[in-house]
Amino acid sequence: MINVGIVGGTGYTGGELARLICNHPGMELKAMTSRGNAGKPVGSVHGYLKGYVDLEFKSSIEEDDGLDLVFLATPHGVSMEHVPYLLEMGLKVVDLSGDYRLDDEKMYSQWYGKGHDDKDNLTKAVYGLPELFRESIGKAQLVANPGCYPTASILALAPLFAADMVDGDVVIDAKSGTSGAGVKPTIRTHHPNCGETVIAYNSGKHRHQPEIDLILHKLGKGGNVYFSPHLVPIIRGILSSCYLNVKKKMTTEDLQELYTEFYSGERFVHVTEEGSIRDVVGSNHCQVAPLCMGGNKVAVFSSIDNLVKGASGQAVQCANIMCALPEGMGIDFPGLGV
Amino acid sequence: MINVGIVGGTGYTGGELARLICNHPGMELKAMTSRGNAGKPVGSVHGYLKGYVDLEFKSSIEEDDGLDLVFLATPHGVSMEHVPYLLEMGLKVVDLSGDYRLDDEKMYSQWYGKGHDDKDNLTKAVYGLPELFRESIGKAQLVANPGCYPTASILALAPLFAADMVDGDVVIDAKSGTSGAGVKPTIRTHHPNCGETVIAYNSGKHRHQPEIDLILHKLGKGGNVYFSPHLVPIIRGILSSCYLNVKKKMTTEDLQELYTEFYSGERFVHVTEEGSIRDVVGSNHCQVAPLCMGGNKVAVFSSIDNLVKGASGQAVQCANIMCALPEGMGIDFPGLGV
Amino acid sequence: MINVGIVGGTGYTGGELARLICNHPGMELKAMTSRGNAGKPVGSVHGYLKGYVDLEFKSSIEEDDGLDLVFLATPHGVSMEHVPYLLEMGLKVVDLSGDYRLDDEKMYSQWYGKGHDDKDNLTKAVYGLPELFRESIGKAQLVANPGCYPTASILALAPLFAADMVDGDVVIDAKSGTSGAGVKPTIRTHHPNCGETVIAYNSGKHRHQPEIDLILHKLGKGGNVYFSPHLVPIIRGILSSCYLNVKKKMTTEDLQELYTEFYSGERFVHVTEEGSIRDVVGSNHCQVAPLCMGGNKVAVFSSIDNLVKGASGQAVQCANIMCALPEGMGIDFPGLGV
Amino acid sequence: MINVGIVGGTGYTGGELARLICNHPGMELKAMTSRGNAGKPVGSVHGYLKGYVDLEFKSSIEEDDGLDLVFLATPHGVSMEHVPYLLEMGLKVVDLSGDYRLDDEKMYSQWYGKGHDDKDNLTKAVYGLPELFRESIGKAQLVANPGCYPTASILALAPLFAADMVDGDVVIDAKSGTSGAGVKPTIRTHHPNCGETVIAYNSGKHRHQPEIDLILHKLGKGGNVYFSPHLVPIIRGILSSCYLNVKKKMTTEDLQELYTEFYSGERFVHVTEEGSIRDVVGSNHCQVAPLCMGGNKVAVFSSIDNLVKGASGQAVQCANIMCALPEGMGIDFPGLGV
Repeated sequence: MINVGIVGGTGYTGGELARLICNHPGMELKAMTSRGNAGKPVGSVHGYLKGYVDLEFKSSIEEDDGLDLVFLATPHGVSMEHVPYLLEMGLKVVDLSGDYRLDDEKMYSQWYGKGHDDKDNLTKAVYGLPELFRESIGKAQLVANPGCYPTASILALAPLFAADMVDGDVVIDAKSGTSGAGVKPTIRTHHPNCGETVIAYNSGKHRHQPEIDLILHKLGKGGNVYFSPHLVPIIRGILSSCYLNVKKKMTTEDLQELYTEFYSGERFVHVTEEGSIRDVVGSNHCQVAPLCMGGNKVAVFSSIDNLVKGASGQAVQCANIMCALPEGMGIDFPGLGV
Repeated sequence: MINVGIVGGTGYTGGELARLICNHPGMELKAMTSRGNAGKPVGSVHGYLKGYVDLEFKSSIEEDDGLDLVFLATPHGVSMEHVPYLLEMGLKVVDLSGDYRLDDEKMYSQWYGKGHDDKDNLTKAVYGLPELFRESIGKAQLVANPGCYPTASILALAPLFAADMVDGDVVIDAKSGTSGAGVKPTIRTHHPNCGETVIAYNSGKHRHQPEIDLILHKLGKGGNVYFSPHLVPIIRGILSSCYLNVKKKMTTEDLQELYTEFYSGERFVHVTEEGSIRDVVGSNHCQVAPLCMGGNKVAVFSSIDNLVKGASGQAVQCANIMCALPEGMGIDFPGLGV
Repeated sequence: MINVGIVGGTGYTGGELARLICNHPGMELKAMTSRGNAGKPVGSVHGYLKGYVDLEFKSSIEEDDGLDLVFLATPHGVSMEHVPYLLEMGLKVVDLSGDYRLDDEKMYSQWYGKGHDDKDNLTKAVYGLPELFRESIGKAQLVANPGCYPTASILALAPLFAADMVDGDVVIDAKSGTSGAGVKPTIRTHHPNCGETVIAYNSGKHRHQPEIDLILHKLGKGGNVYFSPHLVPIIRGILSSCYLNVKKKMTTEDLQELYTEFYSGERFVHVTEEGSIRDVVGSNHCQVAPLCMGGNKVAVFSSIDNLVKGASGQAVQCANIMCALPEGMGIDFPGLGV
Repeated sequence: MINVGIVGGTGYTGGELARLICNHPGMELKAMTSRGNAGKPVGSVHGYLKGYVDLEFKSSIEEDDGLDLVFLATPHGVSMEHVPYLLEMGLKVVDLSGDYRLDDEKMYSQWYGKGHDDKDNLTKAVYGLPELFRESIGKAQLVANPGCYPTASILALAPLFAADMVDGDVVIDAKSGTSGAGVKPTIRTHHPNCGETVIAYNSGKHRHQPEIDLILHKLGKGGNVYFSPHLVPIIRGILSSCYLNVKKKMTTEDLQELYTEFYSGERFVHVTEEGSIRDVVGSNHCQVAPLCMGGNKVAVFSSIDNLVKGASGQAVQCANIMCALPEGMGIDFPGLGV
């Protein structure tokens, strides 16, 4: 039994981690921290966890919690305060923030607007996308869990980059549910403002753009990645619509074949014919639907639940690998479907 | 041409007033105030008004604005700061807050949690529900515009109270869109919290309960009113479902006849067979659907757009009456339907 | 290992049964029937089940399927065609339709508009609400799984009926998500018609009214039950708001105490302070929130996921009891929360 | 006063036309046809029009209806049955279907899957986008009202095509509300299927792709247009997100300047900084937000209400021009905003 803790347990990804771990046969949730809610029962903050998580939030992780692994569900900039001492305590760490995803401190400060305080570990962290970096994750002490948009987008494009088929720039038009914005009320996520509309934001300026670009170019050549996120009035889910030219014409059948082969054996990635979020809600699954739009233009639609495969589910998947548990343990169940 | 001003123009009802007045053939919007946005163009705060309202928010109404009438779209407790000097300036006032709806200062302080600072005008204010108090509104200098829930609920029940048919208590189960909660983001109206759910709140404790009770008992006898509001994930609209016993059995046909006669000649109240919000969205119309549930049990469903007939549209309707303009001027158009 | 089959597998409750059973450690799904989709892989109809249910729909259940128990996810009127021969085959049956919920053929034909073809079994069937009829379910060969609205409503009111506290009529104003209307597109569930509105329908005429009334009066005395359902623009979930007078005043604390004691030891029913659907989505849990509205008027809000505790989850719960498995096996996980 | 008729009045665009015309000071609605609802009052089908449209649906337009202009709100393939005799009757016609938008019969049969029965008029029809073809519309007897997606997309891209700045292909990722799918219930628009998801459909195969391509290339040079539509769970509105390279780098300021100048003097097109649908719902306005994503990559976001500027509102705008009425008459009011 692996003993795990969650730092930053009051947000959506913290609660989602607890939801998954409470029924995980190989992990036991021993500690959950929260600066603002320390001392309160977890079930009083996350009502749906009452009866499943019998813990009080504490203010910090300590040696005698007896942990093997810690999930950091903390904001950008806060995770890097925690990583050094946790690693020194000999714990494995999966960080759900963006602090260790870019492997270059200059790029980090350019996109996150502040310097990086833990440069040593920045270069040691492994990017936690198991379908691409399974082996390294298995050896890592520190895993940088991918962002929600990057998970959907990289899985959509990896087969074409790896096959060296990408010709020129890639445009990614992504649509996210509102839970991606976090637990804190804002003007944008106020229901009368975000209901019955679609909002484009941060086009070309979102922090997930360099992350997607960086990882894809580790797989193969290709032009720049341009990323354009949108907010849609759903709670969970991302549909990432990717557009690019391929070096020579590929029919939809060619694409389906390439993708099916690339993801053969993967439990959580499925090649489908249509892009839609419905089937994956509540689950760790990703659906990828590549097609030919005509000529050399290809569209790939990729869908995930942003809180599961896009955050907490993938973090558990990484933790399973790091702890030599079966990769799907605790997260291998279907989406809601309806 | 009646010159009007709006105090408190940054909220939803303030914007909605401007939306209606900008195309009103008998009114001209001369001033709009906002404490926080003074100096900014109205169109920079309410993007949809760009090209229609060519004003900057100012900090306060002044004598030389040359106004005839002022709409107060200010919160409870703030309206009573403005009413005295505006009335003294000789202006007509329509107050959209709850400050002047209850005619008794004790009841006010019991339900609003603070004393009333303008007791003189409290008893002079006329309740602005034109279908019931048209004549008094025509003579009033100060009109207390009804709350959104009370508008729907009182119109649903007035015919039965007026006919002395009410036997015992009345239960009102109301469902409101999120715009009723106002422009300020809150935990409750954060999309991930209020989407895909229905939330019951303040049952038996909402300030609109005594307002409904007070007005209905001016029309006739009947037991207590119990009010139970709910938040539903729509933006505009209220459906108020009212349940009561009648003194002797009335069939659905009997009820339809009573209601049709009661509201004959009314432009904005319509007797229908089914309760639904769809048809009235965006408009000043109210649909009322009474039916027999079996025995002496009657259900009445009443639907309005909370921002129009439940707030700004009704305020314009009152202002029209106060200024001897045709009652429907500027607000006589159909709902969106789809 | 209990071998189970599902008759009528293409609808929402059929798919939901499969979703739950595929990860149930004590059940194996051996057969799924569909008249229209016989021969097709289950995953081609329910995309989210791909990789979890490796079956093709067949046209009917047969002896050599080797089943122990069958779930009937068939419409009203169709279940009674299947029950006789399945029982004769010695199988246990959980029927999710309304065919065996009313114990009287006259009442059945009055509310369902047709005669009952299986009167013998009609009186033998046990009503499958475990919290009230656990023992009988354990001995039954045929269980009539409760309707979605009745599950929420009966759990809301049972403690007061059982305590003989109900004074006079009970009004139930229920709000349901659209999945309750089933898989077949209709004018009412067409998104432009049911989005951004609330629709009252079948007030006092819904088939669930006599079901609720029948079961509650088995528990204790009380007046008539009047049931008023509404459609709200969410997919999963029911909030049932119940209003009644109690024989002597009970404070909210009194009510909370009564309910907490009544449901002590229950895994799936929780007494809360506020009525909301959010916490139970995707799960078999029910939240019940009783409160005093003033005087002797009591409101009880009860929330469930209509497809889980209101249908397929409860059916599995009953099947567990019938097969002497732990009652929560396969369905004991938290709701989505977000 | 211009006397107008609507052929095909039971759909969403037919109802929306009536909603706009009933308050149009220069038009009178004299006849509305419907094959299925002939003889029924319009208000019994479109409840929101009760009190505004006092007509019964008739089965066909006749000489003695005394009309000046007819709107065809009929499906593709049906409009071409009506156009010849209506033109022969000397009437002006605005066709809201796709029958006369492509100026080439081969292209029509390729994309619409059937031959064109009215080739003579096909080439005479004027494309009804006033901002680009105002003068021709003024002289036309037959106007082909643009599709909803093309209206948003062409207005987004026209300034760059006209300025000869387009370098290579254009990708359009559009998001539409469900009212665009029409009044008839389908599997796709069934609420449990289309709520809480985003669905990509017909990428590269939608009939609006050649329409957009055709019109843009009348304005200037540029590569192919690739069109990728999505369904989002809102009722009204389209956000069209367009991506392309420009021949030389343009900053966001450069783009804003180009667009502001191009649309100067236009009442219904507004250059904004952010792409969002909210402000234009219920109105004939279009918001266009161009920005530089980095390098030579440009994004333009364009939003309209698909039933107004994307259909019926634009049809009235065209009819105003054809009849020498002020272009904005009857449609010059702000969006709902909230």
